[in-house]
Amino acid sequence: MIPADHPRYRSLVARERLAACAREGVVTLEGLTAHGRGEAFDYLIGERTTESALLAEHIAAAMLLSARLPVISVNGNTAALAAAALAGLQGASRARVEVNLFHRTEERVEKITRILESAGVEVLKGRAEPLLPLSHPRALCLREGIFSADTILVPLEDGDRCAALVAMGKRVIAIDLNPLSRTARTATLTVVDELTRALPGITRACREIDPEEGERLMKSPDNSYFLRAAMDEIRGHLEHALD
Amino acid sequence: MIPADHPRYRSLVARERLAACAREGVVTLEGLTAHGRGEAFDYLIGERTTESALLAEHIAAAMLLSARLPVISVNGNTAALAAAALAGLQGASRARVEVNLFHRTEERVEKITRILESAGVEVLKGRAEPLLPLSHPRALCLREGIFSADTILVPLEDGDRCAALVAMGKRVIAIDLNPLSRTARTATLTVVDELTRALPGITRACREIDPEEGERLMKSPDNSYFLRAAMDEIRGHLEHALD
Repeated sequence: MIPADHPRYRSLVARERLAACAREGVVTLEGLTAHGRGEAFDYLIGERTTESALLAEHIAAAMLLSARLPVISVNGNTAALAAAALAGLQGASRARVEVNLFHRTEERVEKITRILESAGVEVLKGRAEPLLPLSHPRALCLREGIFSADTILVPLEDGDRCAALVAMGKRVIAIDLNPLSRTARTATLTVVDELTRALPGITRACREIDPEEGERLMKSPDNSYFLRAAMDEIRGHLEHALD
Repeated sequence: MIPADHPRYRSLVARERLAACAREGVVTLEGLTAHGRGEAFDYLIGERTTESALLAEHIAAAMLLSARLPVISVNGNTAALAAAALAGLQGASRARVEVNLFHRTEERVEKITRILESAGVEVLKGRAEPLLPLSHPRALCLREGIFSADTILVPLEDGDRCAALVAMGKRVIAIDLNPLSRTARTATLTVVDELTRALPGITRACREIDPEEGERLMKSPDNSYFLRAAMDEIRGHLEHALD
């Protein structure tokens, strides 16, 4: 049991939750390593939502609200860490939620679906088809979900899949703490923030912004601005870290 | 099977090797997350041995060679990634090798011992006693090993244990890619380099330096110089990473 006043409480709870989910087969061993990379970048960015990330969260909300068919693509790590936050965002954005896994097995899809449903998420179901321009089984997705979406939120996505979605002409919103990752560079918009801060941030923005503000936000700085801002934050943080 | 010409070959092979060792109980789930943090910092430092790290590796070699009783403390991640490199370093430095685990069970100690021995490492054995100023079972070590050592190389060590060894008056050489970690700040000398580059680097230095050069090296810059140099490398790398 981790004491609630431990200075690393949030981080330790997340790590413990992921390890428990790995034991159950919900999170992959590769997913644990990926989480470690995210932890390092979160540390470097100061474990807080930066001003530029907050702006990105507002633009992400505007993109979801103005979409014809918004879809949130959920993997094991996302379900393990943020099922409740996903329920909130689905309510605020009316997005469909599809379970889409890099290491896909029907058993994992079912386990993750159950975690999401227990948290109140309505999960899209159906027969997955090889519809993405990727090698099987990574090409699998639902025709009524990711394949038909015009705007997709991909928290913690792999670079190849992000690129494939963009190549299909979709607007892709990534949540990625590494501003240098292929996902971060490829996405239409990257929210450089930690998942359990970013999702509620987008949810709040969905509830706050009106259509006029949404239109203004959509004309905001492009993705490279947000990546550069995140890099500057990290550099600034490092400059004084050893003082 | 990862193709040898994949741009991320080394990194992917290491990750796969750790996942395999996690399935066998050699590496812990926490160890996988820790590896991910290391990956992120290695990425930021350019996945190469920097000039300052190379100097640190030479000083580490001089410290091991001039020690009365040098010991290398090995955990699951280190054994999984670098058993062969440890055999090389043991040969060049005549250090004792002790298996010392944060999540200690006799079963894990035995498995890790077998991995090391298959790679040609001579592993110190005996009855572990609670000799370190830490809560049980993290206090366990061998009287003829870590407890009696004057100089200890701890690749990938936990901050608490590094501090405990320093408090016992030992010279502690850490290998740690995060120049801000408690281990990196606490150690007598921190080699900010990736394990499978750092260990062979120290081995080569053991074979190259003569006693006179060794004495000169021991008067070299102190640990804070190496931490600051690593931070400057990361900041420099970030400055141009998005160009």
